Amino acid sequence: MLTGRAQYYLDKSKFTEIGEFTDPNESPEYDIFYAGHTSPSISLAFGLAKARSLKKEDFNIVAFIGDGSLSGGVAFEGLNNAGKLNDNFIVIVNDNQMAIAENHGSLYDNLRELRETNGQSEHNYFKSLGYDYIYVAEGNDLESVINALKKAKDTKNPIVVHLNTQKGEGYAPAEAHREEFHFSAPYDVADGEPLQQSNESNYITDTRDYLLRKVKENPELLIISSATPEVFGFMEKERKACGNQYVDVAIAEQTGVSTMTGAARGGAKVIYPVMATFLQRAYDQLEQDWAMDNSPAVMPVMGTGIRALTDLTHLGFWDIPMITSIPEIVYLAPTNVEEYFAMMDWALNQNEHKVAIRVPTYSYEHSKGEVDTDYSDLNKFKVVKEGKDVAVIAAGDFFVKGESVVDALAEKGINATLINPRFVSGVDTELLNSLRQNHKVVVVLEDGSKEGGFGGRIAQAVGATGMKCLTYGLEKKFVDRYNPEELEKAYRLTVPQIVEDTLNALK
Amino acid sequence: MLTGRAQYYLDKSKFTEIGEFTDPNESPEYDIFYAGHTSPSISLAFGLAKARSLKKEDFNIVAFIGDGSLSGGVAFEGLNNAGKLNDNFIVIVNDNQMAIAENHGSLYDNLRELRETNGQSEHNYFKSLGYDYIYVAEGNDLESVINALKKAKDTKNPIVVHLNTQKGEGYAPAEAHREEFHFSAPYDVADGEPLQQSNESNYITDTRDYLLRKVKENPELLIISSATPEVFGFMEKERKACGNQYVDVAIAEQTGVSTMTGAARGGAKVIYPVMATFLQRAYDQLEQDWAMDNSPAVMPVMGTGIRALTDLTHLGFWDIPMITSIPEIVYLAPTNVEEYFAMMDWALNQNEHKVAIRVPTYSYEHSKGEVDTDYSDLNKFKVVKEGKDVAVIAAGDFFVKGESVVDALAEKGINATLINPRFVSGVDTELLNSLRQNHKVVVVLEDGSKEGGFGGRIAQAVGATGMKCLTYGLEKKFVDRYNPEELEKAYRLTVPQIVEDTLNALK
Repeated sequence: MLTGRAQYYLDKSKFTEIGEFTDPNESPEYDIFYAGHTSPSISLAFGLAKARSLKKEDFNIVAFIGDGSLSGGVAFEGLNNAGKLNDNFIVIVNDNQMAIAENHGSLYDNLRELRETNGQSEHNYFKSLGYDYIYVAEGNDLESVINALKKAKDTKNPIVVHLNTQKGEGYAPAEAHREEFHFSAPYDVADGEPLQQSNESNYITDTRDYLLRKVKENPELLIISSATPEVFGFMEKERKACGNQYVDVAIAEQTGVSTMTGAARGGAKVIYPVMATFLQRAYDQLEQDWAMDNSPAVMPVMGTGIRALTDLTHLGFWDIPMITSIPEIVYLAPTNVEEYFAMMDWALNQNEHKVAIRVPTYSYEHSKGEVDTDYSDLNKFKVVKEGKDVAVIAAGDFFVKGESVVDALAEKGINATLINPRFVSGVDTELLNSLRQNHKVVVVLEDGSKEGGFGGRIAQAVGATGMKCLTYGLEKKFVDRYNPEELEKAYRLTVPQIVEDTLNALK
Repeated sequence: MLTGRAQYYLDKSKFTEIGEFTDPNESPEYDIFYAGHTSPSISLAFGLAKARSLKKEDFNIVAFIGDGSLSGGVAFEGLNNAGKLNDNFIVIVNDNQMAIAENHGSLYDNLRELRETNGQSEHNYFKSLGYDYIYVAEGNDLESVINALKKAKDTKNPIVVHLNTQKGEGYAPAEAHREEFHFSAPYDVADGEPLQQSNESNYITDTRDYLLRKVKENPELLIISSATPEVFGFMEKERKACGNQYVDVAIAEQTGVSTMTGAARGGAKVIYPVMATFLQRAYDQLEQDWAMDNSPAVMPVMGTGIRALTDLTHLGFWDIPMITSIPEIVYLAPTNVEEYFAMMDWALNQNEHKVAIRVPTYSYEHSKGEVDTDYSDLNKFKVVKEGKDVAVIAAGDFFVKGESVVDALAEKGINATLINPRFVSGVDTELLNSLRQNHKVVVVLEDGSKEGGFGGRIAQAVGATGMKCLTYGLEKKFVDRYNPEELEKAYRLTVPQIVEDTLNALK
């Protein structure tokens, strides 16, 4: 509302025209950077301050950050750097006492102390990092905030303005249900109740039930979340039910992965369900901690593929290139719910491998037969139907698309082979070489970025055989609030398009 | 020496048997984790503490961290989490007042205050995060340390033991030249002087000279380092020469990338030379900050490929898969020194693209002719020699290998095409399609991990054409202190092996 976008919230017909996150295209004046992941604002603003200094300009630089975002390492790094500026630099901390769920970590004890002492506590995280400090008890009161900002404006030393705010102030249901209102489906304005409620199973509720069962079965099982327990259905009730078998490391994926590694090394069984888009923050920990160390643990990767979140900053397209570029991580892609939990069981009951599992989002599928229970023969693909001329390798939740392609090819008189690779982190070279005897074209489908992904691996392995190879997946492009069906068409991912290309390749 | 490895340092013949970093294979008792990158020790130990609690065990957990490593975000995240443990947790901070170069950030003012007040300063970063705190003024004095650890042992609240130490104590040259002794070639024990000194140009000295020249030419150019200025030849003298046009953001690659983004957005020209292995910590910032935002800047990537650092934890193999999985980052791979700086010039003088440049390590090469100065036609490969039957696409510092392969093929009567792709982040589809007219085999060479890399992209593009495609690069495997020549043989990367495979593919 402060940035001229109130109309979009007040006029229902305009609501979908704006995004949920900052967007320089939408508001060049106020949205200096894209920001959907938390925590980098201070570091970005530090960069602006360096440019201001080199260009000998003079204006106020303000970094805005929520209390929840302060737990991310890059926020500390930014504070550490900007704290040395002998120049104007204002950090506004919007302390509403919430991350997505509740906050975690000892920093939040210090913020509470500061609130309880009206900013006077002897321990002050921000002062220990060299900042001047102003506390505003009534952070929802415009006049109080304006007064504080007037004091901070034009100061030539880094300063933190710590606002004590109330999340959802003025709307009782949002004040009462702060976690639920972080991200809500349409609700009744009168009482805040969701307009539609579903009791149907889905991958999230199934994951929740599985985790709760496993926690009961094994008192040495630890569930880790990095501030997003709701993505696996853990609301307050479920978290409490797990007691000390559940730990939220706050918005801190690097520490999520390191904690997983450390706890596995310490002999616990560990499951760390994490959103693909946020896992990006832990690339180095995935390689240097988890993959290198003897720390078998299980990482269900949520929110991947074309039908997950469609916001530019939350795309789940890049996980296969990211995770599978690292040695020693087994990345499994289940094709249905039974296979998913069979893979979870196997991963949990073995002590040799580090296992990530790509939780489907494309559609909720049940297995048509018995699923395998042993995945220790790494990179062994499963031939679901033997045919000839064309082999369709359809990974994870695009397996259903593979089935449809094979059915459509059958209508054209082609008896194609259908393969569930199960593993996207490696290649079944033996199988691929054997295909050469009576296949001319290999078609690979994956619900993720095509470049650097699973299809590239297959194309490399097929490249020497003389068979053609067609790979299908998402383009390496930024897209924002797209329509999944339209994107499938644009990327030639519909069944008729794939069939057309395959027939052309056979010619 | 405390962990039973003194003999390896005292006996010259045994010195190469041990590594420079912790290694559980080398010392299962003392090296609990592999650790070569800094900063995750507290988070890893936090994981151990969670396992200890679930297993109802009772022992002391000690996380060891240097002052320099405290600047990395994950160290803060670990402190934030472990600070809430109502249990034994000891953090030993070895404060020798050095990172690799000097420390940067306001945290270090607080550490200095703590040293100067014998631990009594009113501001205390660790106490603000809920830790008990012991200061040891004589951190090199064994008895003082033992006394402090006796106090910390078995405490049931997280505690920081802050040791004030002297880097290199007892060896005058190391005390005097603390930065040079972080990583040293063999030296004369009497005076610490290097046994061999070279005045020959190399990519590091050339980069240094280029940066110093550019800084002088443009007062709005900013050079960023994340604590490793020596990898581009910036010792104290060069850093001082740059004044406020140089900023070291400490061991904090996330903030390195965000600062680059922010400063570019603020209108400065920015160059951020960074080690490939450490850049892994900034994957999310590369995508969410740099790639998405309108922030043209230049990132020379150092230490890549088979002839860079050979330690497991410092391998430079993974940069191509990592960087090129992200949209909007142009990754250039120069084949010689003139092309490198032509690419740097182009990248610096344009305002449209975010450009990373893969600095060669394989060999120091000069151009045989004029190099191109304009790279704005993205993903346009350069045909260096037109031939037929076989096309060799040799990227970056493996271009020399491509030349040798083409020469060796000529001896077998094959007139191969030779291509310098220049870009490893995209594919020249038009060129690849045109090759199909008179080529049967495409051979791709890259000095980096094969899976998810440049070769995979080419194989995908070639897959539909009917040509065969052979891709060469490093296996997706962890290797440690390897011999580069032997690894080339093992991975079939020698010229005779590549020629043999190519001839087989032509059959």
